Amino acid sequence: MPGNSLGKMFRITTFGESHGPMIGVIVDGVPAGLYISKEDIEFELSFRRPGKQFVSGRREKDEPEIVSGVYNGRTTGAPLTIIIRNNDVISSLYEEVKHKPRPGHADLPYIMKYGYENWDYRGGGRSSARETASRVAASAIAKKLLMLTDTVIGAHLKSLGPVELDEDVSFREIFCSKYSPVRASKKWLEEKYEELIKQATVEGDSWGGVAEVIADNVPIGLGEPVFDKLKSDLAKALLSIPAVVGFEYGLGFKASKMKGSEANDEIVIKDNGKLGWRYNKAGGILGGLSNGEKLVLRCAFKPTSSIRKPQKTVDLRTSEESTIRVIGRHDPAVAIRGVSVAEAMVALVLVDHALRSGYIPPVKLSEDQARIIEEKWRRYVEECKPMQESQ
Amino acid sequence: MPGNSLGKMFRITTFGESHGPMIGVIVDGVPAGLYISKEDIEFELSFRRPGKQFVSGRREKDEPEIVSGVYNGRTTGAPLTIIIRNNDVISSLYEEVKHKPRPGHADLPYIMKYGYENWDYRGGGRSSARETASRVAASAIAKKLLMLTDTVIGAHLKSLGPVELDEDVSFREIFCSKYSPVRASKKWLEEKYEELIKQATVEGDSWGGVAEVIADNVPIGLGEPVFDKLKSDLAKALLSIPAVVGFEYGLGFKASKMKGSEANDEIVIKDNGKLGWRYNKAGGILGGLSNGEKLVLRCAFKPTSSIRKPQKTVDLRTSEESTIRVIGRHDPAVAIRGVSVAEAMVALVLVDHALRSGYIPPVKLSEDQARIIEEKWRRYVEECKPMQESQ
Amino acid sequence: MPGNSLGKMFRITTFGESHGPMIGVIVDGVPAGLYISKEDIEFELSFRRPGKQFVSGRREKDEPEIVSGVYNGRTTGAPLTIIIRNNDVISSLYEEVKHKPRPGHADLPYIMKYGYENWDYRGGGRSSARETASRVAASAIAKKLLMLTDTVIGAHLKSLGPVELDEDVSFREIFCSKYSPVRASKKWLEEKYEELIKQATVEGDSWGGVAEVIADNVPIGLGEPVFDKLKSDLAKALLSIPAVVGFEYGLGFKASKMKGSEANDEIVIKDNGKLGWRYNKAGGILGGLSNGEKLVLRCAFKPTSSIRKPQKTVDLRTSEESTIRVIGRHDPAVAIRGVSVAEAMVALVLVDHALRSGYIPPVKLSEDQARIIEEKWRRYVEECKPMQESQ
Amino acid sequence: MPGNSLGKMFRITTFGESHGPMIGVIVDGVPAGLYISKEDIEFELSFRRPGKQFVSGRREKDEPEIVSGVYNGRTTGAPLTIIIRNNDVISSLYEEVKHKPRPGHADLPYIMKYGYENWDYRGGGRSSARETASRVAASAIAKKLLMLTDTVIGAHLKSLGPVELDEDVSFREIFCSKYSPVRASKKWLEEKYEELIKQATVEGDSWGGVAEVIADNVPIGLGEPVFDKLKSDLAKALLSIPAVVGFEYGLGFKASKMKGSEANDEIVIKDNGKLGWRYNKAGGILGGLSNGEKLVLRCAFKPTSSIRKPQKTVDLRTSEESTIRVIGRHDPAVAIRGVSVAEAMVALVLVDHALRSGYIPPVKLSEDQARIIEEKWRRYVEECKPMQESQ
Repeated sequence: MPGNSLGKMFRITTFGESHGPMIGVIVDGVPAGLYISKEDIEFELSFRRPGKQFVSGRREKDEPEIVSGVYNGRTTGAPLTIIIRNNDVISSLYEEVKHKPRPGHADLPYIMKYGYENWDYRGGGRSSARETASRVAASAIAKKLLMLTDTVIGAHLKSLGPVELDEDVSFREIFCSKYSPVRASKKWLEEKYEELIKQATVEGDSWGGVAEVIADNVPIGLGEPVFDKLKSDLAKALLSIPAVVGFEYGLGFKASKMKGSEANDEIVIKDNGKLGWRYNKAGGILGGLSNGEKLVLRCAFKPTSSIRKPQKTVDLRTSEESTIRVIGRHDPAVAIRGVSVAEAMVALVLVDHALRSGYIPPVKLSEDQARIIEEKWRRYVEECKPMQESQ
Repeated sequence: MPGNSLGKMFRITTFGESHGPMIGVIVDGVPAGLYISKEDIEFELSFRRPGKQFVSGRREKDEPEIVSGVYNGRTTGAPLTIIIRNNDVISSLYEEVKHKPRPGHADLPYIMKYGYENWDYRGGGRSSARETASRVAASAIAKKLLMLTDTVIGAHLKSLGPVELDEDVSFREIFCSKYSPVRASKKWLEEKYEELIKQATVEGDSWGGVAEVIADNVPIGLGEPVFDKLKSDLAKALLSIPAVVGFEYGLGFKASKMKGSEANDEIVIKDNGKLGWRYNKAGGILGGLSNGEKLVLRCAFKPTSSIRKPQKTVDLRTSEESTIRVIGRHDPAVAIRGVSVAEAMVALVLVDHALRSGYIPPVKLSEDQARIIEEKWRRYVEECKPMQESQ
Repeated sequence: MPGNSLGKMFRITTFGESHGPMIGVIVDGVPAGLYISKEDIEFELSFRRPGKQFVSGRREKDEPEIVSGVYNGRTTGAPLTIIIRNNDVISSLYEEVKHKPRPGHADLPYIMKYGYENWDYRGGGRSSARETASRVAASAIAKKLLMLTDTVIGAHLKSLGPVELDEDVSFREIFCSKYSPVRASKKWLEEKYEELIKQATVEGDSWGGVAEVIADNVPIGLGEPVFDKLKSDLAKALLSIPAVVGFEYGLGFKASKMKGSEANDEIVIKDNGKLGWRYNKAGGILGGLSNGEKLVLRCAFKPTSSIRKPQKTVDLRTSEESTIRVIGRHDPAVAIRGVSVAEAMVALVLVDHALRSGYIPPVKLSEDQARIIEEKWRRYVEECKPMQESQ
Repeated sequence: MPGNSLGKMFRITTFGESHGPMIGVIVDGVPAGLYISKEDIEFELSFRRPGKQFVSGRREKDEPEIVSGVYNGRTTGAPLTIIIRNNDVISSLYEEVKHKPRPGHADLPYIMKYGYENWDYRGGGRSSARETASRVAASAIAKKLLMLTDTVIGAHLKSLGPVELDEDVSFREIFCSKYSPVRASKKWLEEKYEELIKQATVEGDSWGGVAEVIADNVPIGLGEPVFDKLKSDLAKALLSIPAVVGFEYGLGFKASKMKGSEANDEIVIKDNGKLGWRYNKAGGILGGLSNGEKLVLRCAFKPTSSIRKPQKTVDLRTSEESTIRVIGRHDPAVAIRGVSVAEAMVALVLVDHALRSGYIPPVKLSEDQARIIEEKWRRYVEECKPMQESQ
């Protein structure tokens, strides 16, 4: 049954396998009039791109092509399709995988579900994290539209393996973690993370981590009770990322250890005269609705399943127990690149709900709106460019 | 925009407010031929019912009425509607709430979204946990259908405030937590939980907790990549429960602290000759698909927001800061009753995906299937009855 | 699989069988702040009510109860549920039907699909036209919301059996067919229709007919290419009415006999300075989008299947050919009451698309909007009341 | 808001504009294991291809590429994507259109909805019938899957302008209309149609027509009451085709002129001992469900809007009335190629409902099923090949 679409008013449908000719995404529901260019999408993809230090060695240029929905540089209201060709594909690295499902991977469940004879094992096929590039590509459009409500999203790697950020961090620092090749929001943290990564690489092992995403200026009242609450849709979107095994927002699991008098927040009049909450303990969501405070959520990534260390598995040809050393080209910690994917998923959910709640016009932008979005986007890109180069 | 429906092939739509004439649910997608009675639904509701020791004092009989979709004791394929009248309603307890939004509650976000003038504040209106009775009612049908695949769901309160179960626990013990008024799976734990509850009641405070849900005999391959993965739909469903602020499955957040060589599981040949995983570290879901191992997931409940202790809020009449002591009748730990709601949500997601994957016939049950389900259900009820009475 | 919901932003889910305790509808997606009363719904239902001259003798009071989603006379944003109890039920009239499926009815297909043992034959069960009362009830809310765009819908019986209106008719005349017990838009036509009906009643037979629906002031640009075009969603909605076997808009089937130079319309500057079409040959829809001209569509109703004349069928007990004379209480021409149902379906589709295109705020109405709607609605009711009484 | 997807279990999402780099379709919900090749898709496309006698002069090779979802010649369960590059594009023919919206076309409504500045006027942009090639491509997969239930679909041009088939026609003759370049099911009809077309071409005019689609061996019980009835979903699908302005099934509009005793069918025991209907007056659908008889439906195509004859329009630069002679390369009767598109839409709806009703396994085909489908498909292609060549 279909499962490759997400969103009700801003709806993405992704397609493509790791070692097929291309991956891509159809974005349906983009209002007409938005300026959008290949460069806008490339820009967002640049923060996810493999082939950098500390991540997988696969050298994909990730060059997006917009093949529908845009005319003369602006969206037309028709479905917007982006394709990204797969260039740097070495399927031969996966020959062993064909017979020996990799522990921690989707290999065996896919075989169980779809049949061994129908399994595209090359590079993980459809279950490969390569698919997430489509999501990040689509998120460029989401982020541009969110300029209309001044919503900006920052994300960083809050913990990597045993190392966790345990001091205060500003939205600015989180946002600027784009500067860091390991998405650390503090310099000292970056060093510690890099050390862990190097050590794991040497050992042929990997680390898990926690990505934290913050969104500023989230429109008030996003979320539709009782099942399409903002927290529900965010949880679904984040759990749809490969390797994500947990989600929490606000106090999250810590709240389960607390008393009501600790976990409840105080309702106050803010300096701007508006009602709000003193400490934002709820992470910006109360009653399932955005409440005007910063959105704060985290998701747990398990360690990269592909490791060089030998692991026990079964040889499907002989049905005998065997071992495998996964050789492909893999991230020592998927959580690092996962940060930008988590950020993308939050953008996709927020823009969907901003449309659902009427904050963004569903059919077309006015000329003013289109222009303002473009100006804000230019400033955003300018601001982020040094970060892009630093990585 | 609509948000009150969940599921694609087994689709529930709930309605009703805490202090309206009734709450209810339409279940669309139930195959014809299933035996279903008011008693079946009442049975499941009995484990959630307020008015017991350690939970809210509201005395609702929770008497469900099936008003459509069943003829001569069997489903007809038409939408099945269950209504539950609200009887024990004391709206006067909420007069103060009308002007003083309760910290930690949906009050203020609902006002922000829908307008103060349209806010049904009585008993929390639509945001009340009362709505979850509709879900539990619907879950009786889900659980009966899941008898076809021998899928059984157990759930317990894994931690309450600072007290956490830190020893091995069997599926049987978890299942039998229905015996416990605080949903503890061990006797010593029950005592500790009860103590905490009593103390909180005295203090006019509340506690958070973690519910763990285990499902045995989950059909293999449930979940639809890449967005309707089983983990995604479970996360969405569980986060849609009021007061749930976190979700994890398998190793969950702990995996984020681990190395790949620790977090990966071993693929082995089981005693029955089938492929499987040695330790079920993945909690029954790999690649987003159920893998034949037990489903293991947890969700974090924040402490009950309604506490008698005075809390800071704002009086909407004067726009001045004020305090409120929430007096209604509330659970000292929503997590306790939350256990049965979490269990219900898991049942609803599993049956939806079992239908999506073809494990349950979409249109009608054969006579054999209907009879087998009924027999298994009778055994299940007999088994659980002593638990019901012990509470 | 679920099939009892319609609409994406204004979503109705109906439930209930002809001889069950009640029928009803959940309307999800109604913005908060709309004034709505039981009387508003009763008013719309009055034009569909059976128990009048020329239609079925079943005496249903059709008294709607709003059981959720409204507080203090205004919608809250929560799902709005309306129930209508079934009172005048005589199931004994259906004893013969149990074994002899009625020609032209859903009896045998329902038995084939859901199983004989699960078939609620009483009054046609779920397939009864009784279900359409839920749709008309929901359409009251749709029509009120459409007051915001001044959209008004008129409908009449364009033909009954061999008699067809073949002269010009104004929107006003069509709208005022509510005065007529047979939904005729001209006095001479009314007489002819009544004669036909009387004759059919005497013969124990029935007639088919064509309902025409016109909507004035339809917002421009409704419809979402390429599958949710306005014409597509209208066709689906109208074909979902029992006994409807055909749909056309604008020139409809006549266009298939024409040349392009005849069927094309002229694009002109209207007196108000706006672009438009000279003759509205397209019936208000071009490219699948509403184009600002009046919406004009028709649907064909087959004759009432329930007739007293003996018809050939098979006795399911003996598997031998047999005959049946259907005795229940039935309309001699379902098309008559079908007019109000067709009108309701058009309202439901238009309001859904008006929401999708941003003409109606998705979350809540402003105080001004709520007031203006109410004023216009009052005028509409006042205008229609004499029509109600005349029937 | 998204509108480019159709179907619940077999879900197509199309993208692409007439003069963009490519058009295409994602098919989500295809079970794994189906053999599928580029040739299969090309085969179906061949019956729709422009560039033949009597249809548009645009010479598109319509060469489909499968870029995802297939591995080693079989579907994998991942979304299957087909792209078709646009090669023979002459946008210069549309320069006049840019300022003079064409009567009968989507031009002006698209401008009204999405804004003049966002309008891709080249070749009709998204509203071009070119998009229907994506649907026909997807229908190849649908038709293959329907081999499992032996469902075969035939379609022919029942009338063209004033000429209508008024004698009996067999399913075989209808099916073999693929032989005819004008989709006529009788030789004498073919000649009359060709004459009409030639005359229209000379005059610079066009004709409307009616396509009739018949499906044999439709599984029993397809359709989900009360809104996703088979007739409703068919109506929606057919009305989504550009230029379709009417739909009917069975007796259709003729039933509206009849008495119940004429329109009702007789329920009988068929020669095979099964229950059925004597005359199939209902066209295979009763109560909204397929009833085991042949599906019979028709849709009305208006005449091609693009004609060389001068027509009145408005010049958008001057806002003055003007005339246009549409020069591009167009079919003299869209209904001719419309036959294959109507056939495709019926296949798409039937396969969706066959999956919804459990006739086709939702996740994967067994080896036997895959093989049987392939064998039947080969026979079907062999049978149709001479027809392909004759055109």
